[in-house]
Amino acid sequence: MKAEKAAPRRAGAQEKHDRILKAAVKIFARHGFHNSKISQIAKEAGVADGTIYLYFKNKDDVLISLFEEKLTEAIDRLKELLDGIDAPEQRFRAFIRNYVLYMDENKELAEVISVELRQSNKFMKEYVPIKFGEFLNLVSNLIRDCKDQGVFRTSVPPGIIKRSIFGALDEMVLYMVLDPHPKYDAEEIADALAEFFLEGLKKHPSSGQ
Amino acid sequence: MKAEKAAPRRAGAQEKHDRILKAAVKIFARHGFHNSKISQIAKEAGVADGTIYLYFKNKDDVLISLFEEKLTEAIDRLKELLDGIDAPEQRFRAFIRNYVLYMDENKELAEVISVELRQSNKFMKEYVPIKFGEFLNLVSNLIRDCKDQGVFRTSVPPGIIKRSIFGALDEMVLYMVLDPHPKYDAEEIADALAEFFLEGLKKHPSSGQ
Repeated sequence: MKAEKAAPRRAGAQEKHDRILKAAVKIFARHGFHNSKISQIAKEAGVADGTIYLYFKNKDDVLISLFEEKLTEAIDRLKELLDGIDAPEQRFRAFIRNYVLYMDENKELAEVISVELRQSNKFMKEYVPIKFGEFLNLVSNLIRDCKDQGVFRTSVPPGIIKRSIFGALDEMVLYMVLDPHPKYDAEEIADALAEFFLEGLKKHPSSGQ
Repeated sequence: MKAEKAAPRRAGAQEKHDRILKAAVKIFARHGFHNSKISQIAKEAGVADGTIYLYFKNKDDVLISLFEEKLTEAIDRLKELLDGIDAPEQRFRAFIRNYVLYMDENKELAEVISVELRQSNKFMKEYVPIKFGEFLNLVSNLIRDCKDQGVFRTSVPPGIIKRSIFGALDEMVLYMVLDPHPKYDAEEIADALAEFFLEGLKKHPSSGQ
């Protein structure tokens, strides 16, 4: 999606690129995607308006690039976390908890993902979900590992469950971002969701599956 | 939110009001909320542009009214359905299945709720969720009934779970609306979600809760 692929090779270009995305998170969270202007992002980043167009095609491209890069960071971080855990059930639990707590610690990013992203028609209807697909596959791989090791029921369909888990996580992030007086803190939400999902997928002697 | 509360009292006014909302569903689904114009809704409804403003303050008001009225219909329909079922576990299952199948049968409405609604900043940040709250409370009441009758674990927090269930349902509706070649049909999705949620909340002898 970058307008000029060569840009990051120039000295300082990567740093400038990152600075623009960091500024965009702030501006989108403050004004909403539709009311944000490229000139506001430029001002916040301390660059000229035209500089933004060296790195991004338009405002939708800034938003989608932001999503892709943040998701890449999240995937890398989650993979590293999971590498240190053996038991598939614990890996699954760690994944859910970590996602919720990370979003809670990064409220502006959480707002961009749960609120602003859905305001881009381009994202909703034209975005080819490569990184998002990779993220969902992390979830379905965790589910498959648990199935293979006899922890989850064999009847669980990973393709449906991975998306519904994302939906539940996304809605709770929205709640944490938008509710001015949340009744539950991130720890309570993280624990309740991990428990809900795990019990929902586990093989239970009583259910005979 | 209506600009003129007296309007529905005039003969034919309620019919015109409903016709405008029906047209709005079509126009929003076709062009997206931000690209839709009041004049397009008027044309589709067969009324003058100015007539729309007798019933609604602006485009956001049309969208939010649409959401509120459709949700009212959905709540009434679901309550009626649930009235005919005794066992709390079966009531819960019927609710989940019915929600998914109804959205599948009403794709344009499903698109408005899962895609367009989030594009209104006014909805996301200023909407006072009276009807949405009522809908969520239907879910938490079902959860409480199941807890009271010893079907669900006493540790289940209804306030968190009702929202995460809505999030999971909403994401699967989005999948059904936007994926041109869905791998799963509505029946498979409805069954998988009902199973996932029920098992996730039920008291299992093995978990000792």
